[in-house]
Amino acid sequence: MCIKKKKKIRIEYPSSEKIYMPGELHDIRVGMRRIHLTDTVEKKENKKQERKFNLPVIVYDTSGHYSDPCVVTDIHKGLERIREKWIEDRNDTEQLEGFSSHYCNERIANIRLINNVCFPIIHFPRRARSGKNITQMYYAKQGIITPEMEYVSIRENVQNKDLGVLSHITPEFVRSEVAAGRAIIPANINHPEAEPMIIGTHFLVKVNTNIGTSTLLSSIEEEIEKTVWSCKWGSDTIMDLSTGVHISETREWIIRNCPIPVGTVPIYQTLEKVNGNIEQLSWELYRDVLIEQCEQGVDYFTIHAGLLKDSLSLIKRRTTGIVSRGGAILANWMNLYEKENFLYTHFDEICEILKQYDVAISLGDGLRPGSIADSNDAAQFAELKVLGELTQKAWKHHVQVLIEGPGHVPINKVKENMDKQTRYCNGAPFYTLGPLTIDIAPGYDHIASAIGAAQIAYYGASMVCYVTPKEHLGLPNKEDVRAGVIAYKIAAHAADIAKGHPGAQIRDDSLSKARFDFRWRDQFNLSLDPEKALEQYKASGKLAEDDHCTMCGPHFCAMKLTKSMVCNETL
Amino acid sequence: MCIKKKKKIRIEYPSSEKIYMPGELHDIRVGMRRIHLTDTVEKKENKKQERKFNLPVIVYDTSGHYSDPCVVTDIHKGLERIREKWIEDRNDTEQLEGFSSHYCNERIANIRLINNVCFPIIHFPRRARSGKNITQMYYAKQGIITPEMEYVSIRENVQNKDLGVLSHITPEFVRSEVAAGRAIIPANINHPEAEPMIIGTHFLVKVNTNIGTSTLLSSIEEEIEKTVWSCKWGSDTIMDLSTGVHISETREWIIRNCPIPVGTVPIYQTLEKVNGNIEQLSWELYRDVLIEQCEQGVDYFTIHAGLLKDSLSLIKRRTTGIVSRGGAILANWMNLYEKENFLYTHFDEICEILKQYDVAISLGDGLRPGSIADSNDAAQFAELKVLGELTQKAWKHHVQVLIEGPGHVPINKVKENMDKQTRYCNGAPFYTLGPLTIDIAPGYDHIASAIGAAQIAYYGASMVCYVTPKEHLGLPNKEDVRAGVIAYKIAAHAADIAKGHPGAQIRDDSLSKARFDFRWRDQFNLSLDPEKALEQYKASGKLAEDDHCTMCGPHFCAMKLTKSMVCNETL
Repeated sequence: MCIKKKKKIRIEYPSSEKIYMPGELHDIRVGMRRIHLTDTVEKKENKKQERKFNLPVIVYDTSGHYSDPCVVTDIHKGLERIREKWIEDRNDTEQLEGFSSHYCNERIANIRLINNVCFPIIHFPRRARSGKNITQMYYAKQGIITPEMEYVSIRENVQNKDLGVLSHITPEFVRSEVAAGRAIIPANINHPEAEPMIIGTHFLVKVNTNIGTSTLLSSIEEEIEKTVWSCKWGSDTIMDLSTGVHISETREWIIRNCPIPVGTVPIYQTLEKVNGNIEQLSWELYRDVLIEQCEQGVDYFTIHAGLLKDSLSLIKRRTTGIVSRGGAILANWMNLYEKENFLYTHFDEICEILKQYDVAISLGDGLRPGSIADSNDAAQFAELKVLGELTQKAWKHHVQVLIEGPGHVPINKVKENMDKQTRYCNGAPFYTLGPLTIDIAPGYDHIASAIGAAQIAYYGASMVCYVTPKEHLGLPNKEDVRAGVIAYKIAAHAADIAKGHPGAQIRDDSLSKARFDFRWRDQFNLSLDPEKALEQYKASGKLAEDDHCTMCGPHFCAMKLTKSMVCNETL
Repeated sequence: MCIKKKKKIRIEYPSSEKIYMPGELHDIRVGMRRIHLTDTVEKKENKKQERKFNLPVIVYDTSGHYSDPCVVTDIHKGLERIREKWIEDRNDTEQLEGFSSHYCNERIANIRLINNVCFPIIHFPRRARSGKNITQMYYAKQGIITPEMEYVSIRENVQNKDLGVLSHITPEFVRSEVAAGRAIIPANINHPEAEPMIIGTHFLVKVNTNIGTSTLLSSIEEEIEKTVWSCKWGSDTIMDLSTGVHISETREWIIRNCPIPVGTVPIYQTLEKVNGNIEQLSWELYRDVLIEQCEQGVDYFTIHAGLLKDSLSLIKRRTTGIVSRGGAILANWMNLYEKENFLYTHFDEICEILKQYDVAISLGDGLRPGSIADSNDAAQFAELKVLGELTQKAWKHHVQVLIEGPGHVPINKVKENMDKQTRYCNGAPFYTLGPLTIDIAPGYDHIASAIGAAQIAYYGASMVCYVTPKEHLGLPNKEDVRAGVIAYKIAAHAADIAKGHPGAQIRDDSLSKARFDFRWRDQFNLSLDPEKALEQYKASGKLAEDDHCTMCGPHFCAMKLTKSMVCNETL
């Protein structure tokens, strides 16, 4: 395998301009997308045309520098390290002169690897200076508004500015939510390429994309492509679930080229190191993996520390047992040694490590239900209670916490998940996988789960992990990733509107106005996937005229008929 | 245009057998699909294999005779007229010696048309004998359990029989729900080819597919193909929204070959007759269309009788005005003549006509919101109130009633729609178009609306009208129809499970068990779209082995790991 020299990667959106909004407290600039619209043209009965200007719409932008025509990106160099100066200025971290993980040192000593698959630039890691706490949660509790906090406050208000709607989310509000643990800003000091974003119930609902190689399929280049591709469609974070060869190298390439936070499940790499032999797993190995990934720049770790030995007997009654990979690995280990989960017993040590880099913990739900039959059962909620205890522990270290949730849950049981999570975990943000509302939709599980995702996000979940059409069937390709991200952007946006997030509806209103005006291009350009909309419009044979829609034909177009009444003021 | 001789159409499902369940009260046989499964094979540690039989699963079947290998279908002959004898036996209808509609008589006198595009067999229509009421609602109120009622009671319980779950829905329960107006059995006596089905809040949630030619696109053959195709994927009714040439002929071909109820919007054909000139619309023309379609066998009509002159001023404030085609046509007519909607003023006459054939009324929502901005507004609910009044009027004639609903509604406003509809319309079944929960998803509106459809069906809507990926962009092709139907089967099934419909979850449980057993073929065969599931599995390179899944690879498969613990009883 060899990573070929590639031209710079570009993300393009039609009629869109990359803009930057400046900070007021800090020297920051927040990237956004401004969609320009055409004029409304009204034909009056007297044949006179009236033109009316339509305000451009500014939308939240996850595409980073890839959509800035002034920036030349190069995957061999990685993205600009925009947060580096902010971190240095805080003067509470130090640049190490090497790596702290044994495995990492072994790996970079391997010349053959370096020449072939390693990212060409070595950035030595940064770590908290002795005695310093450097997490966003710690700063927030001290009353400090960091550049990261101001950045996300501007970002969350993006849709309002041009249209004169008052800002609602202030830097101070961000600070208070992070301090209370109700929101997190996943921002490892070793991933300064990432643009800060926030995950919390009072903010826009976020979408995560899972990517990653497996022993069976896919290459590093493909994974970088999928990363940028996910950002293009609006993914807010990615999780690299690689389990194949070159797991560390793949991750390095991804992180250096990724403008959004990156999550991982460190137990995967740990098991990879012992060639899948669960017997050889140990805390020491796991610890080394944690350190390696902290120093590489992973922003949040899924850690299945809440899965306890006593809960295992509860899964015997289940239809689909354990469907979380991490959960199954740890269950097997506990079962083999008749010992308590080492992630639980070493939880304080985990926090001690993570807080030195400001890596957030995503407390994994190893016992999430894998079928409707198993939803909301004793095993699931027993674990959720433990996650609540661990949340308190992590917060004592000022480590930021996410809570992972199901899975497969029928519509009538979704709310109970949200309510219990809020109660057990004191309002820590909830991050759910769907949930899938039925089991009989393989090939369409992005839809079966978008239904549950929209609902749980409406009830308060802060981030939803996408599901692709290939779920349960195989690894997603690029088109599957796109289908999954868009389905989840729909679910997230549906929840944002339903929750009344300030400004969320502006884009919808603008698109609907364009629709009523038969401004077809504006309608496409304002949509979540302009390319798909245009493509499907064209597939209808480009038969639509300006003033009626493709489905109706000229006699029957409802909007055309109404418009003539409204324009001619005959109503 | 000429309809070519075609081979018989067949619908096939893998590992499935067409079965028929007999009635107890009547000489009827209800078609169903039995999915056969393979054995569970468990590998014990001592290498001994244990085989366990898995019960087949019986599922609701909308494919009619097309999936019966013993029946030779021929679109030039039409389907078997299974209800003909039931209707004759009631002895309250008579076979006419010709057609009652002027237009129909003109049309069949046109020899050129007959040779080219007409359905080759003429069935003279049937009508209630003078003084007789022949609607299912009338019978129900008299305490009569018709074959249609027993048929649907067996059909609704389908998933239970083989598995020993007690039947829940009895013929008497069906009768009482139809009598109360809480459910309808759309079953025109002139569409005896249709297999009876029921639409009501205490029954399985139903899905409607819209098909139809327009002046711009598509042929009769395509529409027949789409009809059968919709039935294959599980559509419960279709609406023929044709607006093109040969509108009556298209409908005749569809009805004669359609095993599910067919709905139409008669105002479309009325406008077609006057070449789109709204000025020339009249009650007399509309009346003739109603009679023609009643005698052809349309099972339910969308009639926008609740859109009143006084409400029109309410749409001026709207972002997207009127988006219902029927609504816009009538609004223009009212505006032009400054007269009340003729469908409202002639509503009793409409009921007089419909009850002679047992055609159900689907009260159209001409003012349904076409954007999030317009949802739940005064115009929408003003019309809904009128629909409630009209429901009472129709029920006096014992005409069966459906109420149509929105449209575009954000998640937080969905429940209000259901609650108001139940209150205003006294529990008449609600039939909604989505609703779409956001406006910015052109190209993916099947997903944006499946979210709303699942939710409103969970709250009590009885039927949901599908939306395809082409919504707002163009006319759907076959693949769009499939995508739309499956998205809506998912929404409907999610609601059935959430509502606790007896037996709805059996298929899910069986699929999940197959998944846990790595019985891949069973998993595909039990799914809503077995072909798609298999295709996507194969697209992953057929790399999956028997005992781990394609996403995880051998070391990481959670279910494999759990299974080994469960099988070896080490938990």
